Amino acid sequence: MNNEVLPILVFQTDFTYLEGAVASMYGVVRSVSRDVEIITASHDLPQYDIWSASYRLQQYMEFWPKGTVFVSVVDPGVGTARKACVALTKDGYYVVTPDNGTLTHVKLAHGIQEIREIDETINRLNSTRGTSVFHGRDLFGYCGARLAAGIITYEQVGQKYDPKDIVTFDIVKPAVAEGRIKGIIEIDDPNFGNAWTNIPLEEMEKAGFVYGEDIHVIIEKEGKVVYDRNTRFARTFGDVEKGEPVLYNNEQMHVSFALSQGNFMKTYGITFGPDHLVTLEKKHV
Amino acid sequence: MNNEVLPILVFQTDFTYLEGAVASMYGVVRSVSRDVEIITASHDLPQYDIWSASYRLQQYMEFWPKGTVFVSVVDPGVGTARKACVALTKDGYYVVTPDNGTLTHVKLAHGIQEIREIDETINRLNSTRGTSVFHGRDLFGYCGARLAAGIITYEQVGQKYDPKDIVTFDIVKPAVAEGRIKGIIEIDDPNFGNAWTNIPLEEMEKAGFVYGEDIHVIIEKEGKVVYDRNTRFARTFGDVEKGEPVLYNNEQMHVSFALSQGNFMKTYGITFGPDHLVTLEKKHV
Amino acid sequence: MNNEVLPILVFQTDFTYLEGAVASMYGVVRSVSRDVEIITASHDLPQYDIWSASYRLQQYMEFWPKGTVFVSVVDPGVGTARKACVALTKDGYYVVTPDNGTLTHVKLAHGIQEIREIDETINRLNSTRGTSVFHGRDLFGYCGARLAAGIITYEQVGQKYDPKDIVTFDIVKPAVAEGRIKGIIEIDDPNFGNAWTNIPLEEMEKAGFVYGEDIHVIIEKEGKVVYDRNTRFARTFGDVEKGEPVLYNNEQMHVSFALSQGNFMKTYGITFGPDHLVTLEKKHV
Repeated sequence: MNNEVLPILVFQTDFTYLEGAVASMYGVVRSVSRDVEIITASHDLPQYDIWSASYRLQQYMEFWPKGTVFVSVVDPGVGTARKACVALTKDGYYVVTPDNGTLTHVKLAHGIQEIREIDETINRLNSTRGTSVFHGRDLFGYCGARLAAGIITYEQVGQKYDPKDIVTFDIVKPAVAEGRIKGIIEIDDPNFGNAWTNIPLEEMEKAGFVYGEDIHVIIEKEGKVVYDRNTRFARTFGDVEKGEPVLYNNEQMHVSFALSQGNFMKTYGITFGPDHLVTLEKKHV
Repeated sequence: MNNEVLPILVFQTDFTYLEGAVASMYGVVRSVSRDVEIITASHDLPQYDIWSASYRLQQYMEFWPKGTVFVSVVDPGVGTARKACVALTKDGYYVVTPDNGTLTHVKLAHGIQEIREIDETINRLNSTRGTSVFHGRDLFGYCGARLAAGIITYEQVGQKYDPKDIVTFDIVKPAVAEGRIKGIIEIDDPNFGNAWTNIPLEEMEKAGFVYGEDIHVIIEKEGKVVYDRNTRFARTFGDVEKGEPVLYNNEQMHVSFALSQGNFMKTYGITFGPDHLVTLEKKHV
Repeated sequence: MNNEVLPILVFQTDFTYLEGAVASMYGVVRSVSRDVEIITASHDLPQYDIWSASYRLQQYMEFWPKGTVFVSVVDPGVGTARKACVALTKDGYYVVTPDNGTLTHVKLAHGIQEIREIDETINRLNSTRGTSVFHGRDLFGYCGARLAAGIITYEQVGQKYDPKDIVTFDIVKPAVAEGRIKGIIEIDDPNFGNAWTNIPLEEMEKAGFVYGEDIHVIIEKEGKVVYDRNTRFARTFGDVEKGEPVLYNNEQMHVSFALSQGNFMKTYGITFGPDHLVTLEKKHV
């Protein structure tokens, strides 16, 4: 056993535990190294939802020790020309992932120091069956384990390429004016049906919104208005009646939508993503 | 690396793996200590169901080594006046939890030796964003990790208070008379739709019930009768016809209800909790 | 702490995380040994589905280090005469399981070197309540932990018996002729609704089938035809129209059925198992 502290391997995928994919991937890790720690962030991400993978990674990354290696496999384009890569963030985390948009939020929030394409000639498992077509197991899990275990250096992952070439979603950054903010419905809180915007609480103050105020809210999905309603900006859900929508400050210090004792997203048919624009403006008098 | 054996950290929550909450909480633990073991008891507890959290904790606690630190976060009252605490049981386990009823079953079954309110001035994470509003991550996970890792002693959790002041549900303890027992429908076996009472098998003998007997059963939910039926008390489900209800002895040695090859709770609309009374009595002749 | 590298304990069950069963079982393992590693392969296997348990075990076993101890508990016959056993495969893995068919695929793919019935007089936990009726926890988990931790040798598991007496499902092995292959729908890919046969890709070549060809497919379930249709044998799903079925090569290098951008199994009402026969033959002209 190695007495040095090895980096931790943190996994997020959309594999579920309904079949043997997770167990195969973790088995490959253990065959590479007995010492590297395996942590399950989630195998229940929404299927094929690269945007959610991108958001969730950034949601929890900062709480892990520097040097942690994250393996993210939400990969609808497996088998296509998308690159397999390992990114090194400016603050010292590693992300092993298809370069398919998964790095969007991490690039914005942490910055990318360097990015390398995985060299499949050395960092891909050739299994006992003489084949290897399951990238989570044979490429991302295998390469991540070798990196975390110190079997390869970061340089040995493969050739580096320009971080400018990383595939990202376009995100409308919050735009603030007097009495008006524009942003996006960035993600959901699936357990409660709340909708989280990308608008930081502090921008509300800059725009002149105050707690207790009714704000005119417009949500547009792919250009079509799906919500247009005055909505109370409140400190707690208790400030509005049961069944009423409310704007509140979430655990990420972002303005968010909830329905008091209900499910905001289902009730109003709201979904999330880069093309879900939200406008907050002073209520019409 | 510490060569002493550190206590284990066992987590149960209602967070699910649908978003990044579990990964954030475990990240905080790993940032506190690389050595303390993280075990997932469950993140699939019924949402907001403090009673289930209380029952499940007691269901599995005894099987863990003494000294294990359990972190339970089912916390509908987050942000209200409920205390955040660490309990020490009479047999040497620790429970980090909101003091909201979660300690009910553990107090009854293990006894509480001492209880301390978490001092947020020293045992709460101030994250890189300058805020901290997610108690599972910033308070319970953080404090639990510090305790398990030996960074703080139990005394350093915070001020102790009287175990008599612990918030608990009222539980009707089984009352036994000749030919009659009263108790509650304490919990479900969700995979099978069975209903578990809090009546130990041995009480059945005391009351004079024997296997093979049809017993008159009344279940009342919040004062209203929801089940009133003669039910066979049987050693195995095979003793009754398919689709028939049966009283049997469960893995906790408690009398329980099942439907042969079916779902008892759904079929009869039975739920569980401290206000779900059950009466077993000799069949009317 | 033991400085030798202990075998890993890998668990698969149908317990779910909805209640305290997994946490009780893992607690028993930790009470036996602080050092043996606990890995969750899955607790979400289909309830009572021994066939799936058998398939999944074989799906991921080969990726783990030799010596790994697998504990599989899908056990509808708990309490009946079925044996509790530990198998040693020809390539050096251990499987702790009810001998109820779970060893079918592992026996075929890895071979069984030796099998021993668990001696309950020494390898069964007598819990603090003086009882022990939950085999996952008290028998399979407990015995597996003792074996992995080196507390007992493999010989001390109990008496060996003849591997010929292992309970297995009958599997129709692929039968290949010119222009015709018979096999079974062996398992599903539940996340995508694909159906995997037990027919290796290489057999397709032997039978004279080529990519791009329409193949006449008949699927029979318990003797009744449930699918009878010409189906394209394609390299990628993109070779057929959206909503069309397709024969492709899966990650196990087996011929499989998918529906382009859809769910093959739900759409055609296909399930899986040893009695789900599939015939591929040259298209009628």
